[in-house]
Amino acid sequence: MRLTKYFLPLLKETPSDATIASHQLMLRAGMVRQNSAGIYSWLPLGHKVLKKIEQIVREEQDRAGAVEMLMPTIQSADLWKETGRYDAYGPEMLRITDRHDQEMLYGPTNEDMITDIFRTSVQSYKRLPALLYHIQWKFRDERRPRFGVMRGREFLMKDAYSFDIDEASARQSYYRMFVAYLNTFARLGIKAIPVKADPGPIGGDLSHEFVILAESGESGVFAHRDLVEMAPPGDVDFDSDLSGEVDKRMALYAATDEMHDEAAYDAVPADKRMEARGIEVGHIFYFGTKYSEPMGAKVQGPDGKPTTIHGGSYGIGVSRLVAAIIEASHDDNGIVWPASVAPFGAGIINLKVGDEACDRVAEELYAKLSEAGLDPLYDDSSDRGGVKFSRMDLIGLPFAITVGPRGIKDGVVEVKDRRTGERESLSVEAAIAKLTG
Amino acid sequence: MRLTKYFLPLLKETPSDATIASHQLMLRAGMVRQNSAGIYSWLPLGHKVLKKIEQIVREEQDRAGAVEMLMPTIQSADLWKETGRYDAYGPEMLRITDRHDQEMLYGPTNEDMITDIFRTSVQSYKRLPALLYHIQWKFRDERRPRFGVMRGREFLMKDAYSFDIDEASARQSYYRMFVAYLNTFARLGIKAIPVKADPGPIGGDLSHEFVILAESGESGVFAHRDLVEMAPPGDVDFDSDLSGEVDKRMALYAATDEMHDEAAYDAVPADKRMEARGIEVGHIFYFGTKYSEPMGAKVQGPDGKPTTIHGGSYGIGVSRLVAAIIEASHDDNGIVWPASVAPFGAGIINLKVGDEACDRVAEELYAKLSEAGLDPLYDDSSDRGGVKFSRMDLIGLPFAITVGPRGIKDGVVEVKDRRTGERESLSVEAAIAKLTG
Repeated sequence: MRLTKYFLPLLKETPSDATIASHQLMLRAGMVRQNSAGIYSWLPLGHKVLKKIEQIVREEQDRAGAVEMLMPTIQSADLWKETGRYDAYGPEMLRITDRHDQEMLYGPTNEDMITDIFRTSVQSYKRLPALLYHIQWKFRDERRPRFGVMRGREFLMKDAYSFDIDEASARQSYYRMFVAYLNTFARLGIKAIPVKADPGPIGGDLSHEFVILAESGESGVFAHRDLVEMAPPGDVDFDSDLSGEVDKRMALYAATDEMHDEAAYDAVPADKRMEARGIEVGHIFYFGTKYSEPMGAKVQGPDGKPTTIHGGSYGIGVSRLVAAIIEASHDDNGIVWPASVAPFGAGIINLKVGDEACDRVAEELYAKLSEAGLDPLYDDSSDRGGVKFSRMDLIGLPFAITVGPRGIKDGVVEVKDRRTGERESLSVEAAIAKLTG
Repeated sequence: MRLTKYFLPLLKETPSDATIASHQLMLRAGMVRQNSAGIYSWLPLGHKVLKKIEQIVREEQDRAGAVEMLMPTIQSADLWKETGRYDAYGPEMLRITDRHDQEMLYGPTNEDMITDIFRTSVQSYKRLPALLYHIQWKFRDERRPRFGVMRGREFLMKDAYSFDIDEASARQSYYRMFVAYLNTFARLGIKAIPVKADPGPIGGDLSHEFVILAESGESGVFAHRDLVEMAPPGDVDFDSDLSGEVDKRMALYAATDEMHDEAAYDAVPADKRMEARGIEVGHIFYFGTKYSEPMGAKVQGPDGKPTTIHGGSYGIGVSRLVAAIIEASHDDNGIVWPASVAPFGAGIINLKVGDEACDRVAEELYAKLSEAGLDPLYDDSSDRGGVKFSRMDLIGLPFAITVGPRGIKDGVVEVKDRRTGERESLSVEAAIAKLTG
């Protein structure tokens, strides 16, 4: 993409209501624009990152055997009345009355709706387990939306739902998502650890939050260092028994303030204790027959009798992740994107647009990096060098290649690594090889 | 995908409220499920088609130089009051009051919001032309939703918006979209022709609908046959003058009932006159300063003076297209997908699951077609052959390969072309070559 054909409206001043780094940086870098309280437009740069995260989440869900579908944003209140949630949900539910005076709502989550789809679609245990997901906009009418897309009202979430014949089988579905989440966050280039979460009235051990470690995190996190440093499971067979991967993690202490157990933490060897702050970006939850019971979601069991199914739900905050990744990865000059979610693979800065030699080299870099699939952003604007450098730092692409008259005389361009700040003078060929190799 | 791991709940009976073929077929084939009047869930099969159409639309917008972003579904009423549309829109607008008694709405379109984003982002004519688009869910509270996703309430639309310094430049943006639309619909495997549409109070010639020809179409269409048969522009330079491509089409008569001009149609040579029925799937529209004037969207012009920008909007009904394509392409046995939007590239029917030889051949086909990127659907269920054949016909994949004990004895499988109904007995290698060649 050529910058002169792109739409990248940077803000010079940080709006005063933006108090955390990700909110400030997303506004300054022209990633989002607030339309009303807690409701944002994703400008082209932000949209690209959002889509990249969404795609990684999708691929890892698919790999785990979850099947994608898409439920609507607007739901009828009827199903929520069946489960008793319509009254229970409170003022965070955006309630809507349509032109025929029907009670509707903007879905904050989809357990009720997916259970309805399931009960009218599946009659036999032979069709189980079923694991369905969608990536859709949700709405929660937060009393006080803040922190930008970190705690917005309209937000993008991946939510998956499992249906199993009994608790033992539901546990396997839970493990699939547990492992898929570890792989997902690793691919996003961030450290996210599973911490025990409140299982609610169901009890048991099948409720985990996934928490990104970041200094600005909303919760305190107490964890065994080995858990934080453990490599992701990677390429596993999701039809196999995954308890090994899960058990070795569940055995290591990890909790946020809310669930913190001093005594258990004290039992962790002192040199393995780690205290940090974290941002919740995912939650997986086994809820048994909480929705299937009131909604009568039953299948014919192996014994021929109607059997109420066991369910679980599995969420990832896709739009929240954009901000959370920035919280975990930025410096004084701006965002530092992990390569997997960077909006462009590299930037090209032409310091003297209009100069025949500079234009030729920059165009060559642009063509070759594009061809290699690196999707570069070429700053072909007439702005001053300083403006170009600081803009490129702000938007945080992994590499920036600077083309200038002085370097060209020596046959080199300068390659800067955004994360380390290291600069190298390389021939055009070597620069291309470095970025695409 | 293996059918036993997929979620494909077919309906045996056609619901009585489904009166048109696409609605019936989408329900029967397990593509969508109605959640409430005019609001649908996209089940996995329907979701795949929706995403394929969306992706083709996206690629052709990108090629034309439009830049993707994403605006939210929920909008504040404030902007709509600035343009006077809040009162003018009528009961089709879903009006919402949030917990703080703010007036909100579910966006039926985005001219007001994008104009607001533009006016606060762009100060100089040097940043023009700007062409932005998003693909987002919209809501129109239809009095009587019907025909399934053809006339639903919650629907997916691609809407693009152009910003230019004057009418001459706006015309160039309009031509870009005109040409992009021709290429888009051609890639979707359907005939869609541009017909004159009502320009409203603006007047002029810059308002076209794109109409798919289908017997069940809502409108009568009168057109010059040469226009219908003209090949799409294909790989053009979108920065060049596109008037040649546009003019040669605008010169040929085409109109729906509403805009029909008997005298002009009579001037078409008799053997070139074509009367058909059509479904509107796109609309492009130059509206000048309709929104920029009341909203004060100005940039500094080349003369240094504040200049009100000229706008246009360009819509494609993405979810509607799923139904429209089915209307244009089905037979008594079910859907006949164009290859570019088929949910799977081919089906594999194993007539004797559990038979060592059948399983081996079917698995080999599944592995090789998957590897070739054809994304096959493998019917590995224990259903009877008749059930498998009619299901495969119903969901309309371009090819189905049947593996049965009798064929295997002769070293062949049967390849059926869904559109022509032609069957061929081929060796496994030849079958793979035919589908991937």
